[in-house]
Amino acid sequence: YKTINLPGVAVGLAWTYVGGDILFIETILSDGKPNLTLTGNLGNVMKESASTALSYLQANAKKFNIDPELFQKKTIHVHVPEGAVPKDGPSAGITMFTSLASAFSGRKVKPFLAMTGEITLRGQVLPVGGIKEKVLAAKRSGLKEIILCWQNEKDVNEIDAEFIKGVNFHYVKNMQQVLDLALTQ
Amino acid sequence: YKTINLPGVAVGLAWTYVGGDILFIETILSDGKPNLTLTGNLGNVMKESASTALSYLQANAKKFNIDPELFQKKTIHVHVPEGAVPKDGPSAGITMFTSLASAFSGRKVKPFLAMTGEITLRGQVLPVGGIKEKVLAAKRSGLKEIILCWQNEKDVNEIDAEFIKGVNFHYVKNMQQVLDLALTQ
Amino acid sequence: YKTINLPGVAVGLAWTYVGGDILFIETILSDGKPNLTLTGNLGNVMKESASTALSYLQANAKKFNIDPELFQKKTIHVHVPEGAVPKDGPSAGITMFTSLASAFSGRKVKPFLAMTGEITLRGQVLPVGGIKEKVLAAKRSGLKEIILCWQNEKDVNEIDAEFIKGVNFHYVKNMQQVLDLALTQ
Amino acid sequence: YKTINLPGVAVGLAWTYVGGDILFIETILSDGKPNLTLTGNLGNVMKESASTALSYLQANAKKFNIDPELFQKKTIHVHVPEGAVPKDGPSAGITMFTSLASAFSGRKVKPFLAMTGEITLRGQVLPVGGIKEKVLAAKRSGLKEIILCWQNEKDVNEIDAEFIKGVNFHYVKNMQQVLDLALTQ
Amino acid sequence: YKTINLPGVAVGLAWTYVGGDILFIETILSDGKPNLTLTGNLGNVMKESASTALSYLQANAKKFNIDPELFQKKTIHVHVPEGAVPKDGPSAGITMFTSLASAFSGRKVKPFLAMTGEITLRGQVLPVGGIKEKVLAAKRSGLKEIILCWQNEKDVNEIDAEFIKGVNFHYVKNMQQVLDLALTQ
Amino acid sequence: YKTINLPGVAVGLAWTYVGGDILFIETILSDGKPNLTLTGNLGNVMKESASTALSYLQANAKKFNIDPELFQKKTIHVHVPEGAVPKDGPSAGITMFTSLASAFSGRKVKPFLAMTGEITLRGQVLPVGGIKEKVLAAKRSGLKEIILCWQNEKDVNEIDAEFIKGVNFHYVKNMQQVLDLALTQ
Ligand SMILES: [Ca+2]
Ligand SMILES: [Ca+2]
Ligand SMILES: [Ca+2]
Ligand SMILES: [Ca+2]
Ligand SMILES: [Ca+2]
Ligand SMILES: [Ca+2]
Ligand SMILES: [Ca+2]
Ligand SMILES: [Ca+2]
Ligand SMILES: [Ca+2]
Ligand SMILES: [Ca+2]
Ligand SMILES: [Ca+2]
Ligand SMILES: [Ca+2]
Repeated sequence: YKTINLPGVAVGLAWTYVGGDILFIETILSDGKPNLTLTGNLGNVMKESASTALSYLQANAKKFNIDPELFQKKTIHVHVPEGAVPKDGPSAGITMFTSLASAFSGRKVKPFLAMTGEITLRGQVLPVGGIKEKVLAAKRSGLKEIILCWQNEKDVNEIDAEFIKGVNFHYVKNMQQVLDLALTQ
Repeated sequence: YKTINLPGVAVGLAWTYVGGDILFIETILSDGKPNLTLTGNLGNVMKESASTALSYLQANAKKFNIDPELFQKKTIHVHVPEGAVPKDGPSAGITMFTSLASAFSGRKVKPFLAMTGEITLRGQVLPVGGIKEKVLAAKRSGLKEIILCWQNEKDVNEIDAEFIKGVNFHYVKNMQQVLDLALTQ
Repeated sequence: YKTINLPGVAVGLAWTYVGGDILFIETILSDGKPNLTLTGNLGNVMKESASTALSYLQANAKKFNIDPELFQKKTIHVHVPEGAVPKDGPSAGITMFTSLASAFSGRKVKPFLAMTGEITLRGQVLPVGGIKEKVLAAKRSGLKEIILCWQNEKDVNEIDAEFIKGVNFHYVKNMQQVLDLALTQ
Repeated sequence: YKTINLPGVAVGLAWTYVGGDILFIETILSDGKPNLTLTGNLGNVMKESASTALSYLQANAKKFNIDPELFQKKTIHVHVPEGAVPKDGPSAGITMFTSLASAFSGRKVKPFLAMTGEITLRGQVLPVGGIKEKVLAAKRSGLKEIILCWQNEKDVNEIDAEFIKGVNFHYVKNMQQVLDLALTQ
Repeated sequence: YKTINLPGVAVGLAWTYVGGDILFIETILSDGKPNLTLTGNLGNVMKESASTALSYLQANAKKFNIDPELFQKKTIHVHVPEGAVPKDGPSAGITMFTSLASAFSGRKVKPFLAMTGEITLRGQVLPVGGIKEKVLAAKRSGLKEIILCWQNEKDVNEIDAEFIKGVNFHYVKNMQQVLDLALTQ
Repeated sequence: YKTINLPGVAVGLAWTYVGGDILFIETILSDGKPNLTLTGNLGNVMKESASTALSYLQANAKKFNIDPELFQKKTIHVHVPEGAVPKDGPSAGITMFTSLASAFSGRKVKPFLAMTGEITLRGQVLPVGGIKEKVLAAKRSGLKEIILCWQNEKDVNEIDAEFIKGVNFHYVKNMQQVLDLALTQ
């Protein structure tokens, strides 16, 4: 687990055709007309997650201490390396949101932290699948903290405790809790 | 059945590949150019339902005590969790309408209430299929009231009364009746 | 046959995969940029019919006592319930035209009247297929008058007279005749 | 062969899946932004013919006594009845051009006249296939004059003279010759 | 080989499903917003050739004595007869460029001249395939001069000299050389 | 290995269906609205690489001594000859970036230099596959220097040293290092 730690970068957990894996979500803002570019070989459901995350962030900008006018002045690019691997599904939703919130607020994401969960337009966190494989991938990559939906706690409890020694789990219900845990400062 | 009860959220009944299920419809308005974004893995017929619901609401805004100029100033995002489940068909039409009317009026939808029915551009409610499976899913989820088209009454009557004890049914003909039943205040 | 009788609603006759059926065409106008939205699970040929009907109406607005400037100020939505049934073919052309003319003129369509026929850009009415099935569906639905292309008269004459007792047929050559028969006032 | 003879209407000869047939091309101009709408179940090659015909007409407007500024002020709709029949191929090119030139100049097309041929961007007329079937369809429909590319003369000569008695053929090389023959006044 | 010789017309050599053939490339400029319309049943690679040719011409307009402001004021239509024949591949690139340069400069292309070669964004000429078939088609059509990439010289040398008697070959490395050979005045 | 050495041209290493090959990336800027045109038969992943490279360059323009306002005033065309060969994958990302940086800065790319690697939105260089085939192709083409991701060093070490005598390797972690090595002046 190595990363240039800049605002706009968050670590998700994915379940690709090679099994569990960690996934960087990178957001860059440039001056320009409001527009959302999505790259990284993303499927439609994953693109919809990004759109949902952005709408929720924009509608609740003040609540998250972000200037609402920024959304009229910035072109947004969200990229997920590695381009050769097709990625899909809703489980990167809360990571997309965290990456966007980090870029818009200028606050970095805490290092050695990963997360996985679906986002709703009300800011809820929904449970996702493949928890065991995702958590083991996070452990292998040296990550220390993982944010999950409270409904995924039962999936973690089914993993042999020895395999995940040293990893700290946070169970959340909404995006406010995610940002409180994930953003520094 | 758990929900953060905000304006813009309504509960529909759907018939997905796993059988009957409840479906949240979430609408958020942001300042911006008039535009309708639809997410949640929706098929074309379901997207058309949302478009029809919006046109009917806009054309009849005054009748429903909504400022018609709002439609020129707000960007609309309608999302239906859960992104991994493909959803289609016209039966979410009246729920889409209720979600939009709730968001534009700022009036919350009554809790423990679900609905299913097709909407027309004249504001009529048309009957839909899969009533038994949908109603049982609503009951299982703890919902207490269900709005249906009057032409679906016969389908409810065919369900064993014991299975739906404690659920209150409302049979309607048009969207005015739906909003009278669904919106609080 | 039941309908909320508003300007913009006309009844067509269709031949879907379940046989002959009646079809409501609903048009709503809203303030906004000129644009034509078409919903109701329509195939390309049926969408082209709507586009042709609109162009003919716009180019001949004065002849039909419609203010030509309305076409620059109104967003148009044409919807055909029932969204679950795919619909296609050119035979709804004259019904599309009647629905649009009714919406733009504010004049209601005569009740208990149906029609079927292809429209051309010169305002001619062309014959269509499936007349027997369509006419019987109209009769079953309680309709009293049917407008057809004069070249479809021979198809009506082949139907057993008893089956269509009480239904009045009008055979026309052009859209002027259709509107004279269909619009009230 | 029956037609309401208005400017903008020209008769082509086509080779559809039912054999040779005549084809009306209808053009209507409305006030509005320059745009070309094409309807009538047209394939891509036929749509490209219309685009080529329009570009040639616009670039040579003065030569054909048409006000060049009209092209900035008029929305164009070209329709080819009958919507249920798929149509394709380049052979309607010169008919598309004649229909457009008629609509823009206000000069009607000569009655009982048909034509078939590909158009180039230099205004040349290229030969097309299916001449025998097309010519016989024109004869059956009561048409009296046919315009063809000079390279199609040999195809006409191969038809039994008795079958085409009373039909007058014009062989041309370019669009100027087509308009000289086709437009009245 | 017959052609109305206007600025904007150049002759290429193609390899279609019927073997080697000559291909006219026709460019017309009209007043209007900058836009490039491509017709003639062209595949994606051939469309990209036209786009590449246009970008190179625009970026090097001064070098080729063309007013750079023309590119902001002219709508461009490039057409390749014959519409029924699908065409693809990069080998028309230098012909596309010559046709565009001729249209923008008003200088005609030398008669009885053909060319084939891929264009790069730096203005290089790259070798292409099917040289033997293309050259023989040019000879059959009465063409007298052919421009090729210098790397295609070896392919010409493999053709029996008798077959190409009277045809003059020019081998080039870049677009400057092509225009020096191809444009008159 | 021959090239007209202009700003905007960089050499990548690709793995196409014919094995390892070198690939020119050509960028041209023209005055006009900001827009990115991509040609050369590129697949979606390769197009996304170009979009990612451009966003990273724009967001870090000052760091690379490029005037940020240029991005609002220039139309960008990136082309990859040879149009007949389909190209895809993320491995041209750093070459795309170098080509863009060269075009925007006016600084030429060092001759006899090639590179291959994926780019991220944070400016990192990621490892890619097919190193042996790509490096041998570079050697065959006469290239003298190759830039690779530091994680690809192990792949180079597996190649027989004799095969790559005279080729100089640079292993990098980020785009700053790439530009320091690649741009002249
Ligand atoms: Ca990985
Ligand atoms: Ca994730
Ligand atoms: Ca569910
Ligand atoms: Ca529903
Ligand atoms: Ca029905
Ligand atoms: Ca009808
Ligand atoms: Ca016919
Ligand atoms: Ca024709
Ligand atoms: Ca030919
Ligand atoms: Ca060529
Ligand atoms: Ca090569
Ligand atoms: Ca590369």
